Amino acid sequence: MPRNPAPAAEPSVPPGAHTALDPRIAQLLTKDASGLVAAIVQQHDTGEVLMLGWMDEEALRRTLTTGRVTFWSRSRREYWRKGDTSGHIQLVRGVALDCDGDALLVRVDQVGAACHTGTRTCFDGRGIPAVTDLATPGG
Amino acid sequence: MPRNPAPAAEPSVPPGAHTALDPRIAQLLTKDASGLVAAIVQQHDTGEVLMLGWMDEEALRRTLTTGRVTFWSRSRREYWRKGDTSGHIQLVRGVALDCDGDALLVRVDQVGAACHTGTRTCFDGRGIPAVTDLATPGG
Repeated sequence: MPRNPAPAAEPSVPPGAHTALDPRIAQLLTKDASGLVAAIVQQHDTGEVLMLGWMDEEALRRTLTTGRVTFWSRSRREYWRKGDTSGHIQLVRGVALDCDGDALLVRVDQVGAACHTGTRTCFDGRGIPAVTDLATPGG
Repeated sequence: MPRNPAPAAEPSVPPGAHTALDPRIAQLLTKDASGLVAAIVQQHDTGEVLMLGWMDEEALRRTLTTGRVTFWSRSRREYWRKGDTSGHIQLVRGVALDCDGDALLVRVDQVGAACHTGTRTCFDGRGIPAVTDLATPGG
């Protein structure tokens, strides 16, 4: 008796991925055990460090090819295009990969607050005590 | 017959650690599976993002209490006080923890090059192609 046809195989790429990340860039990445690199997001004109997110190859591909910053959410385990819910989008102004390939610097124009708590950056008002008075040699 | 005395137990804290990180700060950290948080290092006056390193509780304790930035090297699996070999030390000017506790922003005065390759930052000259021309709404 014929068996029911097997369900169609799951696609091997995530939803929305029509192409892979440029292999010349992919080969430069030093991913962690979860396949991620850290993405530092900086306001392009003021230099403010806005937040840190995480990207896998697909999140980086979307960021590079669409001009909107997309992360991988480690807690929700899904892609997350910044601002789709809040309106606080990040428009890419430049991307660089560091010397050992485990960190990206994404310069953006941030609309509104970068932090989900409503502060401009995710670090605002969150200082912790530190020794800060060592003199710079020759300074 | 008496057994030989057991060797002295290994100390439970790493060499150089005389105290633990303040538990009020430790409880705010969201560490990864390796016990680490990301540490973004920024030049305090120019806003340049210099590099990304990694800290465990002990590296953060040393950074906060000594005024010199100390990382945990994932590749060498050892503490690494920036500049001890190169002279390119980082003097702490401020530390903040982000909203979800998995990233630190360490503002420093960087002596010399931050990158081991000799460039000022670990991102200099390492741009990758990206769409950068989306207009900012209302901008």
